[in-house]
Amino acid sequence: MPKFFQDAYPDALAHCYGCGRLNPYGHHIQTVWDGDETLTRFTPEPYHTAVPGFVYGGLIASLIDCHSTGTAAAAMDRAAGGAAPAARFVTASLHVDYLKPTPLGPTLEIRGTVKEIKGRKVVVQSTVFANGVATARGEVVAVQMPENFGASPA
Amino acid sequence: MPKFFQDAYPDALAHCYGCGRLNPYGHHIQTVWDGDETLTRFTPEPYHTAVPGFVYGGLIASLIDCHSTGTAAAAMDRAAGGAAPAARFVTASLHVDYLKPTPLGPTLEIRGTVKEIKGRKVVVQSTVFANGVATARGEVVAVQMPENFGASPA
Repeated sequence: MPKFFQDAYPDALAHCYGCGRLNPYGHHIQTVWDGDETLTRFTPEPYHTAVPGFVYGGLIASLIDCHSTGTAAAAMDRAAGGAAPAARFVTASLHVDYLKPTPLGPTLEIRGTVKEIKGRKVVVQSTVFANGVATARGEVVAVQMPENFGASPA
Repeated sequence: MPKFFQDAYPDALAHCYGCGRLNPYGHHIQTVWDGDETLTRFTPEPYHTAVPGFVYGGLIASLIDCHSTGTAAAAMDRAAGGAAPAARFVTASLHVDYLKPTPLGPTLEIRGTVKEIKGRKVVVQSTVFANGVATARGEVVAVQMPENFGASPA
């Protein structure tokens, strides 16, 4: 088992701007188990601002998104006793409540818990912490990527 | 009235990574009225991928976010007969339903409608179209930025 969930993504599915190890321009979000929670640590760049001094909400949404799809893949793997190959998940829906401004500077922690696993669907709740204070809370409905993903694009 | 809503943001609040004209690294999202709808056109970069060929969901969330806060500011301005200075809005909550994969390549259109204006709060529904097909639908609760925004960061 690789250290980071995203390291288990097959090369063909490792180009995500948020979490793909093969995207040279991306955020390279990396997630691990921390007991029954999942944990991503991420330090925003100085230009990831909303207003000066605070983190851009779209980045926070991105962190929650990729943290949660990674958590879904790991949770499905763990539920199968670790024997199943890591599946890749896509986001069906994303909800973020911005609780308070997130200060720009400190390394953020995103912590996730699995709320539900049902068939190919995993529901993940993820919270963003800055200096130990929860600043945003998200819920993602992640669905295991169908083999024909994108076969009939819009 | 500037052509784009975001051009009316005061300099001190124009550094947003998504839509700030003064952020040299940002997306520079720009939004206009189109009748009673609001419209943003945005062409993702080749590296804004989810899986190859499709747009990263975190970027889609970002587009919906800034398009909607811009729409909120413009709607508040219009509701006041255009006499009020453009207020700056922050996101209280963001919800995105990903309807289908968004192809990477074409210029995307994000179209917004104002669902509710109540006090300092504006609810905006925004839909992302690629090649004329709706691929994601979002709802943002935007709140006029308090004067003490971030005075007590986490």
